[in-house]
Amino acid sequence: MSSKFTNQQYRLAARPMGMPKTSDWSFTTEDVRDITGGEIIVQTIYISLDPAMRGWMNEGKSYIRPVAIDEVMRAGGIGKVVASKSDKFAVGDYVSGGTGVQRYWVGAADDKTAAFYKVNAKLAPLPKYLNALGMPGMTAYFGLLDVGQPKAGETVVVSGAAGAVGQTVGQVAKQKGCRVVGIAGGKDKCDFVVNELGFDACIDYKNGSVKDGLKEHCPNGVDVYFDNVGGDILDTVLTRINMKARIIICGAISQYNNTTPVKGPANYLALLVNRARMEGIVVFDYASRYGDAVKEMGAWMAQGKFHTREDIVQNLETFPETLLMLFEGKNFGKLILQVSSE
Amino acid sequence: MSSKFTNQQYRLAARPMGMPKTSDWSFTTEDVRDITGGEIIVQTIYISLDPAMRGWMNEGKSYIRPVAIDEVMRAGGIGKVVASKSDKFAVGDYVSGGTGVQRYWVGAADDKTAAFYKVNAKLAPLPKYLNALGMPGMTAYFGLLDVGQPKAGETVVVSGAAGAVGQTVGQVAKQKGCRVVGIAGGKDKCDFVVNELGFDACIDYKNGSVKDGLKEHCPNGVDVYFDNVGGDILDTVLTRINMKARIIICGAISQYNNTTPVKGPANYLALLVNRARMEGIVVFDYASRYGDAVKEMGAWMAQGKFHTREDIVQNLETFPETLLMLFEGKNFGKLILQVSSE
Repeated sequence: MSSKFTNQQYRLAARPMGMPKTSDWSFTTEDVRDITGGEIIVQTIYISLDPAMRGWMNEGKSYIRPVAIDEVMRAGGIGKVVASKSDKFAVGDYVSGGTGVQRYWVGAADDKTAAFYKVNAKLAPLPKYLNALGMPGMTAYFGLLDVGQPKAGETVVVSGAAGAVGQTVGQVAKQKGCRVVGIAGGKDKCDFVVNELGFDACIDYKNGSVKDGLKEHCPNGVDVYFDNVGGDILDTVLTRINMKARIIICGAISQYNNTTPVKGPANYLALLVNRARMEGIVVFDYASRYGDAVKEMGAWMAQGKFHTREDIVQNLETFPETLLMLFEGKNFGKLILQVSSE
Repeated sequence: MSSKFTNQQYRLAARPMGMPKTSDWSFTTEDVRDITGGEIIVQTIYISLDPAMRGWMNEGKSYIRPVAIDEVMRAGGIGKVVASKSDKFAVGDYVSGGTGVQRYWVGAADDKTAAFYKVNAKLAPLPKYLNALGMPGMTAYFGLLDVGQPKAGETVVVSGAAGAVGQTVGQVAKQKGCRVVGIAGGKDKCDFVVNELGFDACIDYKNGSVKDGLKEHCPNGVDVYFDNVGGDILDTVLTRINMKARIIICGAISQYNNTTPVKGPANYLALLVNRARMEGIVVFDYASRYGDAVKEMGAWMAQGKFHTREDIVQNLETFPETLLMLFEGKNFGKLILQVSSE
C-alpha cells in the first residue's frame, strides 16, 4: 500500500572513473510506501552537497561503507516530517539527518543510519543547519580546536577558505585570537572571507603563487594548516610551516577525481625538519560534543560575530551537475541543493 | 706553531647530485696546530656514518645548517684526548661528540658545536656509544616512546629494522610489551632481528611483497610505524594502519639521493580515514633527557636483554665508499668507520 507521496531518487548506477558523469546516476520514480508504527516520512527540503560524497562512490574500505550500486545516493539533508506514526517526531517538525538524494525518506523515526534530529527553524535559517551548525561546522570546529590546538597569536592557514568547512575554520580561529590566512580561488571568494568573515588575508591561488602569498601574509610562518584540498597547495604550505606545526587533514578535494594515483605530499619531510604533525579528522568521532560546538558558534552568530554563506541551487534534477560545482570550485559558500520549499 | 700531530680530513668539495661521488670530496692533510688555554686535541677513533649526513650535504634550510663547501664533513665520533690545556678533559679520556670526518679535532674543550662529553669504555664497548647509547639510540628511544606512544599489546612496525635506529626501536618496543615486526632487506638481516634481537617477525622487502608480509605478521593491523625509509614502504604501511595509528617520521633513506622530487606518501589520506597521525622527530630536542634513556637501555644491556650490532669498516680513506653502503643497504648494523685503534 502506498502513501500519497511520489518519490524521486538519484541512485548510483556505476562507480565513476574520475569526475562523475551523468551516466553514473540513475533517476528513479516510485510511490512512497505507507508507514507503520514508529515510522515517519520526511520530505526533503535541502540536501547538503559535500566533497566527501565523491569518496562514498568508490569501492573499498574507508571510514564509512561505500554507497552500493543502485542504492539511493547518501547525503545529509534537512526535511519536514509529513507523516508520522512515531512519538519522536510530529508532522511539521523540521529534522536534519541522512535524507539521501531523494524527495522523500521513509523509515523508522529512530533509524540509526539516518539519525534524524529536530532543528529549530526559528533560531537559525534552515540552511545554516547544513553549514556551520551541521557537519561542515562540526568538522571545522573540532578539527581546528582538537587536532590543530591553535594558540592565540599563532598563524592559522586554511584552504578551501570560502567553502563550508573553511569559513568556519577561519572564523573560529579568529575568535581564538589567531592570525588567519585563507586560500581560495578567485577574487570574489578572497574578498568575501576577508571583508565579510574577518580573515586577516586571503591568497587567491588562481591569480599568483601560493608560495609568494604565504611569504607575504604569514611573515611568522604557519603554525596550523587546515587542509581541505591536498595536492600542490598542501605541498606548498609544507615549505612554510613552523616548528611543532599541526596540519589537519580534512580532505583532498583536488585529488578525489584523479584517475591517476593520488599525489602524495612530496614535502612531507618538512614534518621531520620541523618536528611537525599531520593528522586526520573524521567528524563522527565528536558526535557526543556537537552540542557544545553549536552552543558556542550559535552564540557568536547571535552576537553578529560569526557569518556563513550558502550557495543554494534549485531542483533535485540538477543534482548531477550541481555536485560537480564542488570539484570545479564553482560554488561560493556551502553548496546546498534545494528540493522543495520550506 | 704546530703540534706533533698530522691531520687528514674529508672536506665537502661539491654539493652532490644524487648519490655522492668521489669528486664531491677533497682529502686534505695539514699539521694540527698547537693548543692554548682551554683547548684540547681529540684523536678520532670511530666515526658514526648516518643517513642524515646526506641531508647535511645539501644546500637549504633544515634542522641544522648545511656543511659548507670546503668545510670538514660533519660527523659524530668517539675519540681519545691526546692533548689538553683544559680542566674539563685529561689526556687519555674517551669522548663522544662532533669529531667530523678527520683524524684530529682541535678546539675549545667546551665547544658548543662539537659538544664533547666523556664516555666510559669500561661500562660498554666504545662503538655502543655511537649506537644504542648514542644518537641513533636516542632517536629510537624518544621517537618511539614520546611520539609513538606505544601501548602494551599494540603492534609496532619499524623499517630499516637491522639498522642503528631500527634495532633499538624494536627492542624498546618489545620491552614495553608490544608485538614488533621489522622490515629489512635480506634474509640475514631478518634472521638477525628475529633471532638475536627478539622481534616477533621481520619482512624481507627484497624477497616478496611488504603488503603480504604486513597482512601475515600484523593480523591486528599497525598501531605504530617507525619510518626510516620513506618511499614505497611508507606507502604500503599506510594501507595497513589502525584507527588512531601513530607514524614516526625519522628519515627517508630511500629518497635522500633522489635527483627527481621526493616521492610523497600517495596513501596519506589513510591518516584521514583512520584519524591517524604522522609526526617528525629530531633527536636534539631530547638532549636534556638522554641520561634517562642511557640509564634504562644500559640496564637492559647489563641484564642481557638488549643487544646491538655494529658494522665497523676500517680506515679513514674508505670514507667516500663506506658512506654509500648506507644508501645501498649494504651495512648490517650500525655503520661505523674506524680511523685509529682504541
